[in-house]
Amino acid sequence: MRRVVLLTDFGTADGYAAAMAGVIATAAPSALIEHASHDIQPGHILAGALALSRYARLYPVGTVHLAVVDPGVGSLRRALAATVDDRLFVAPDNGLLTLILRDASNARIVAVEHAGLGDDAAPTFHGRDIFAPAAAHLARAEPLSALGPDVHDPALLPLPQPDRSGTDVHGEILHVDRFGNLISNIPAAWLRSLAGEGVALSVAVDGVKVGPLRRTYTDVETGQPLALIGSLDLLEISVRDGHAGRRLGLRRGAHVAVTMA
Amino acid sequence: MRRVVLLTDFGTADGYAAAMAGVIATAAPSALIEHASHDIQPGHILAGALALSRYARLYPVGTVHLAVVDPGVGSLRRALAATVDDRLFVAPDNGLLTLILRDASNARIVAVEHAGLGDDAAPTFHGRDIFAPAAAHLARAEPLSALGPDVHDPALLPLPQPDRSGTDVHGEILHVDRFGNLISNIPAAWLRSLAGEGVALSVAVDGVKVGPLRRTYTDVETGQPLALIGSLDLLEISVRDGHAGRRLGLRRGAHVAVTMA
Amino acid sequence: MRRVVLLTDFGTADGYAAAMAGVIATAAPSALIEHASHDIQPGHILAGALALSRYARLYPVGTVHLAVVDPGVGSLRRALAATVDDRLFVAPDNGLLTLILRDASNARIVAVEHAGLGDDAAPTFHGRDIFAPAAAHLARAEPLSALGPDVHDPALLPLPQPDRSGTDVHGEILHVDRFGNLISNIPAAWLRSLAGEGVALSVAVDGVKVGPLRRTYTDVETGQPLALIGSLDLLEISVRDGHAGRRLGLRRGAHVAVTMA
Repeated sequence: MRRVVLLTDFGTADGYAAAMAGVIATAAPSALIEHASHDIQPGHILAGALALSRYARLYPVGTVHLAVVDPGVGSLRRALAATVDDRLFVAPDNGLLTLILRDASNARIVAVEHAGLGDDAAPTFHGRDIFAPAAAHLARAEPLSALGPDVHDPALLPLPQPDRSGTDVHGEILHVDRFGNLISNIPAAWLRSLAGEGVALSVAVDGVKVGPLRRTYTDVETGQPLALIGSLDLLEISVRDGHAGRRLGLRRGAHVAVTMA
Repeated sequence: MRRVVLLTDFGTADGYAAAMAGVIATAAPSALIEHASHDIQPGHILAGALALSRYARLYPVGTVHLAVVDPGVGSLRRALAATVDDRLFVAPDNGLLTLILRDASNARIVAVEHAGLGDDAAPTFHGRDIFAPAAAHLARAEPLSALGPDVHDPALLPLPQPDRSGTDVHGEILHVDRFGNLISNIPAAWLRSLAGEGVALSVAVDGVKVGPLRRTYTDVETGQPLALIGSLDLLEISVRDGHAGRRLGLRRGAHVAVTMA
Repeated sequence: MRRVVLLTDFGTADGYAAAMAGVIATAAPSALIEHASHDIQPGHILAGALALSRYARLYPVGTVHLAVVDPGVGSLRRALAATVDDRLFVAPDNGLLTLILRDASNARIVAVEHAGLGDDAAPTFHGRDIFAPAAAHLARAEPLSALGPDVHDPALLPLPQPDRSGTDVHGEILHVDRFGNLISNIPAAWLRSLAGEGVALSVAVDGVKVGPLRRTYTDVETGQPLALIGSLDLLEISVRDGHAGRRLGLRRGAHVAVTMA
């Protein structure tokens, strides 16, 4: 019995997500269907890619991850299926798998051409007519290669890259989460190597100083901002018991600077 | 093992939906419980009916669909259980099954009188005390007829009907989905028969022209409106990469006209 | 096969809830994972406690309830695991189990010290690194006592207490649910004993009279307020087909008075 874990930007109120689940339940009756999220911001591929990267590897080997955030539905963009480090993925070829592929030890990708309704697929609902049937195919443990030809050039999102100039580190905010935490693209490893040399660090976002690197929220008083290493092993800026995005007036794209104190 | 698929307007934050799931898990331990949605707009029966019609038939034969959007809870409206084309349904008798019954080849309906807590049911929570026990009864593969007497006059929603006057087609917007797509009541078949005669069609909503019938979103530029056949086989009006409802200032009830160009 | 039922304030869009589910799926492969809610208001422990109390006992004996509403994550507050009336619970020691423990016939509580990543746990995500592994431990039917030492002083929320002075009853609004129902802390039993003596009751909230005790919403006209016994066996104030919180301008903490008419 394989798990199929769904991630979309469909919401649930219109029945689109349940339509995908129903197709899978019919085509792979012994599959266990789970819903990771249907609340990705509509059309926001990077938000979907970040969410997927948070949980995909925590599921068991053999899990099928079906992810659909697909503003280009009905266009000529390909549908992909992939095996990445023993988990299986089905997604549009629009960058949704960027982080999964970036962190892969081992990946094989194919274009989905032989699953689902093919020419009869509704041009506005590939989730139901192409992606769900492809996920069911994999949930039945049928071979990846049967879905279509190999792909060597999957679409990848142009992620903003952090940089180290001298002793300073610069990056930007990639995402604001539900709690208002501002998640940057600066890897923990860079900061640990600086801190390991006994250097005290100072963090600022769009010029607002948020102090040294802390361990957790309760290291500052309620309502105060702080910088810490988040659960994705990236630098985050938070406000204790508050929403840092709203309190600091910051959002995706804000500039993060880490300097020696 | 039967699946029980839940649809409600309860949200999840208050624990009402989980209370129904818990009752089913206890009364039908081998049932597989899935959640289609708990985000139907509170009290909006038609929105629930549309969502249900999108996915109910895609689930396997034997699936139990439990749907509760029930502004009249505690009144004398009946509780229904039904077999429709080999899927099972439990819902209040308020029109929530209108589209399921309209499209049925085969239906048998009973009034639920012998499930659940009967006189001890909380008058404000039939979901927990009447509908969930009835769904568990069906999930245990016990007979529909044991739940109560046959019903031949289920409540049906007075759906607005599209009409064809001469060569023009008129209809109205039934629903605005999460992406802002305006879903009309004009069936694809009517338009295909016109288009099949080589007639170029022109679509307008509340007087706003949205052009000819397109195949998919990417047929127009970003931000432009378009008309297309949606995944329910109904005429829809959308804005590419945008929210048509907000961009065009339109909502449920708006008038749709399809004319020869 | 044991069920693990999750309740959090994480939302689903960031992938945090799915990360917990993935950890459980890997560590307890035969567990059946269900999601009660991830929509608890962020950091609102009482709202989580009320939701949990609505459904926890309705699930079968042996169910593992994993609840994480944890504004103090990373601080020194303990993690708890408990057996309460044959259901199992994992939660932070911050009062989230207050109502479950208050209503318990039988409870044993331990501090979670030997599950999960221990010192390697991310200080901002105990849900993934401590609570989910502890829930998986219990889902594998391993002993509660193996998780850590007994706890006899769990944190409890200071719930506002209703009072009876003479023939009047006073209480306050604990929670406003999705439908706008105002849920008070006045137990049904107190009102039934008054009503049982043939006394007609009159209910007011912050001075707004809402009339006698009714049975259900349809006992008044659309748009009218009413008082009734809700499904938690507490006094509630509602507006038929409307949102009582917004219509009456009332929220959590509002004063409720029940007097003889």
